[in-house]
Amino acid sequence: MSIIKYPNGIKIDEKTIIKNKTPKPRNLKKSRLGVNFEELINESNQYYLDKGLAAIYKKPTPIQVVSVDYPARNKARISEAYYKTPSTTDYNGIYRQCYIDFEAKSCKEMSFSFERIYLHQIKHLENIYNLGGISFLIVEFSTLKEVYILPTPLLIEKHAEALNGGRKSIPYEYFKEHAYLIKESYHPAIDYLKIVDQIYFDEHKFLKN
Amino acid sequence: MSIIKYPNGIKIDEKTIIKNKTPKPRNLKKSRLGVNFEELINESNQYYLDKGLAAIYKKPTPIQVVSVDYPARNKARISEAYYKTPSTTDYNGIYRQCYIDFEAKSCKEMSFSFERIYLHQIKHLENIYNLGGISFLIVEFSTLKEVYILPTPLLIEKHAEALNGGRKSIPYEYFKEHAYLIKESYHPAIDYLKIVDQIYFDEHKFLKN
Repeated sequence: MSIIKYPNGIKIDEKTIIKNKTPKPRNLKKSRLGVNFEELINESNQYYLDKGLAAIYKKPTPIQVVSVDYPARNKARISEAYYKTPSTTDYNGIYRQCYIDFEAKSCKEMSFSFERIYLHQIKHLENIYNLGGISFLIVEFSTLKEVYILPTPLLIEKHAEALNGGRKSIPYEYFKEHAYLIKESYHPAIDYLKIVDQIYFDEHKFLKN
Repeated sequence: MSIIKYPNGIKIDEKTIIKNKTPKPRNLKKSRLGVNFEELINESNQYYLDKGLAAIYKKPTPIQVVSVDYPARNKARISEAYYKTPSTTDYNGIYRQCYIDFEAKSCKEMSFSFERIYLHQIKHLENIYNLGGISFLIVEFSTLKEVYILPTPLLIEKHAEALNGGRKSIPYEYFKEHAYLIKESYHPAIDYLKIVDQIYFDEHKFLKN
């Protein structure tokens, strides 16, 4: 009889599950289905904030407002607006007194296409790197439920190759070999700061100066 | 005959101005009329970015999108949306490898009322301070065209007084005495990083640790 140990410490007899169908095993991979990558990062950021470890937020989506109605006093209703191109990245904030900045992408395919990111977003990540900050791309391969941190210098290198006639995407194999896998965890769901600790603070890699 | 020396190095004979009425003297105070405080900060941030000194951006205004039409393929038109309460502050970014975060306010009155800022925004500034970042309020007294940096610990102190039955606003006189005046300049219009250098890097004040 096998016992499955879940991250919250509850042990459930597999047989019981099969027989009773309740309680459902809290399979991490399955539990993520339907919850999107962005929500998982936001939840993780809330966890870090609550613990007093970091203050990292998603920036609001930039919207160009064209027309606003006032159906009632002090009540503004936007009746015409358009999505604008973001000038920077999705997330930024402070961790261990450092500025941290990243773009998050979820890929259904087994590669990350450069069509998924704007050139000026890559430039922004490069700017942050040049100013001595921590910057990276965080990529989820959704079919595998694997999440990787790709530090900016590696992103720039691959992008330069693409610009010079190379492959227009970064294959999963590259991530597996050169990027940093974020181990699955329960709470926070995407414990990316653990990897940030390892890369930037312990190994002191991919940092200017 | 008096000579007015303008910040861009051009010397203009005052008499000439009075006689000819052209070229108009580029009076800094007047030139600011009609240009709002936010635009001046944005321009200054662009200047810092172009010079490779800092990467500080205004966050987009958070908007809750309710309904989107697609008048054409690949063209999204937001037809119903509402302004949301911002969860953090107006500006953040990186300067001298540090995380910097601030809220900007322009006051017509000779005091800064706590009604102008959300409690959770003050909490956010306090969080940043506690995490070792640089955070402050930047206030323009628009009638005087004077701009001050009020470091977070002073803001928190005055806010605590207000919560304990004290004055619900911070008078101009307090800013004049305890906050840091940003000297008028031409380019950038609001050279607030000069004051940041002084307070946080030279005097090492208002920083945790």
